[in-house]
Amino acid sequence: MKAVVISIGYEILQGRVINSNAAFISRRLMLLGIDVVAHISVGDSFEDISKAFDIAIKEFNADLIVTTGGLGPTYDDITSEALSRYFREEHVLNEDAFREIREKYESRGMMLTPERIKMAYMPKSAKSLSNPVGIAPGILLMKNNKIIISLPGVPAEMEGIWEAHVESFLRRYGTKNIAETSLTLIGVPESTLAKDLNKYARDNPDVYIKTHPKGHETRGPVNELYIMTSTSKDQDPEIVCIRKCRELIEILRNNNPNLIIEGDCVCKNK
Amino acid sequence: MKAVVISIGYEILQGRVINSNAAFISRRLMLLGIDVVAHISVGDSFEDISKAFDIAIKEFNADLIVTTGGLGPTYDDITSEALSRYFREEHVLNEDAFREIREKYESRGMMLTPERIKMAYMPKSAKSLSNPVGIAPGILLMKNNKIIISLPGVPAEMEGIWEAHVESFLRRYGTKNIAETSLTLIGVPESTLAKDLNKYARDNPDVYIKTHPKGHETRGPVNELYIMTSTSKDQDPEIVCIRKCRELIEILRNNNPNLIIEGDCVCKNK
Repeated sequence: MKAVVISIGYEILQGRVINSNAAFISRRLMLLGIDVVAHISVGDSFEDISKAFDIAIKEFNADLIVTTGGLGPTYDDITSEALSRYFREEHVLNEDAFREIREKYESRGMMLTPERIKMAYMPKSAKSLSNPVGIAPGILLMKNNKIIISLPGVPAEMEGIWEAHVESFLRRYGTKNIAETSLTLIGVPESTLAKDLNKYARDNPDVYIKTHPKGHETRGPVNELYIMTSTSKDQDPEIVCIRKCRELIEILRNNNPNLIIEGDCVCKNK
Repeated sequence: MKAVVISIGYEILQGRVINSNAAFISRRLMLLGIDVVAHISVGDSFEDISKAFDIAIKEFNADLIVTTGGLGPTYDDITSEALSRYFREEHVLNEDAFREIREKYESRGMMLTPERIKMAYMPKSAKSLSNPVGIAPGILLMKNNKIIISLPGVPAEMEGIWEAHVESFLRRYGTKNIAETSLTLIGVPESTLAKDLNKYARDNPDVYIKTHPKGHETRGPVNELYIMTSTSKDQDPEIVCIRKCRELIEILRNNNPNLIIEGDCVCKNK
């Protein structure tokens, strides 16, 4: 299953907000065995949100789209309506969402203004995802063989809905088991390690290897070596990961006598 | 001028790295008066990098594309070659880049391996942007009326090249002056403020207004109110911003007697 994460909001394009939501969602999807193939961030504009959906579906063949942002009460919160327009659904009051929103405001003695009721409007066939942290519910829409999940932009609310509803819903769609580990490599520059890593990566296309420079390439080289293996659902990914990790560090040790390796091949699948 | 920021690297799509580079670049571009219209993140794949360029140019009409990531010595660092392929340029050893890389390694008594020399290859007509922090130089390519700037993914190196070369180069392309301010609004929920903000935003299309919930919508509402104005290059954006800001908080105060406003309309254009 292929996923694209779409982040909606001018504050992202203006660099006033670091897009940590895309990282949270991507990490969770990866651990569920779902491939994230692209992130797209656009402003709060019907045209650009529509473009982002088009790109996700037509360019990146996404089966799953997760959006964040634009579900609140202000004038520029247009994600839900953009969803209705793009997927040609009537934009209607969702009864579950309305009940939840009304209860939350009424229990605090607050009136139901049009701005508040707006958060209960969704594509007609969508399911409302209750927000355990804030007000605006998430949206689950299954349409044209695609799954679209829209979550608020406030990280705590996004994560709250994810934990409460999205994680368990998506669990059935993962087709792979993932295991991963990371080691710290000290004393040898990334560009020296590159030769062995390149060869190992070419020979083992089922293993994802990445070095992240943590120190300076020439003065004091420290690199994080990240290793990830993905297996089919009936295999134990940890066993594969440990074997590949040991194989690789054996090669690195043999070819780089000055290399100091911190950490062991302790692979985890979550 | 419209810009798209492209972030390259599977570590972003796997959620192992939060894309802070896109925020840094976007903020800087905004302050230069250049509109960022989209962010796109893709993996280290020729096909997907090419798709990202296509989307930036054809879907978002970008005049400027800034990429980060994929300029290092490892096998999956393919951004420079992807650039050559996409823009149909010969992929050649850049003399300036080569000299710089050679000096950096030789001064430390390190050999010039193929993995290290690889970082000196660029599209034929590209200019190398010297890296004051690490090794891999940035790339400036001007082609088909587009400006493409490729920077390393390591934030300190990206920012180092930005400060040393990119900021001054791009200064001539901004067409607007920007000023901004933010205030803290306490005691009134975002959904209550929404009505006034929506109206003011509709009436003042030259002002960008955004509330960011910092507290809880109903229990203890705290919102950051961000106000940004953009003016033509011959106007003082701070004066416009201060006037608009005072106008708006006057309206909010009048309609929300319980509203506490922290901060003043101190507008800055940097």
